[in-house]
Amino acid sequence: MSTADLFGYIAATLTSAAFIPQAWLTWKRKRTEGVSLGMYLIFTAGVSAWMLYGILLNSGPIILANTFTLVLALFILVMKIRYG
Amino acid sequence: MSTADLFGYIAATLTSAAFIPQAWLTWKRKRTEGVSLGMYLIFTAGVSAWMLYGILLNSGPIILANTFTLVLALFILVMKIRYG
Repeated sequence: MSTADLFGYIAATLTSAAFIPQAWLTWKRKRTEGVSLGMYLIFTAGVSAWMLYGILLNSGPIILANTFTLVLALFILVMKIRYG
Repeated sequence: MSTADLFGYIAATLTSAAFIPQAWLTWKRKRTEGVSLGMYLIFTAGVSAWMLYGILLNSGPIILANTFTLVLALFILVMKIRYG
């Protein structure tokens, strides 16, 4: 694996995994006033576009990383809509 | 531009721009209890790794999109550390 690829995989893992503590905090608090609805609406749209990009390029890692991120972002979005 | 590239640019724009409403909300409220410190620590590390990936690949769009996202994510991180 090239050095660039290595950084790419580290980057994808971190930017996807980052949403785990936010999802957990949101689940624990059941309060989301400080979480931006606009952010999660735009972000889930963006991650969906990344998935489509991965599908068009037939790139397993892009599809995988973005499916994982999409699940977490959708979870936070649903919590935001539910708890306001 | 290929269809895949088009979706890639749309995706990059959305996942970067998504942090604008969160940065704005954080700035307006001066309260960040619902924002996860862990998320922004991991996310800024991840975006920094994406920048390095872009630099290694000499990819202008990757560097540009991630510099923009990094500024916003760092801003939210600093607000989180300041307001707790």
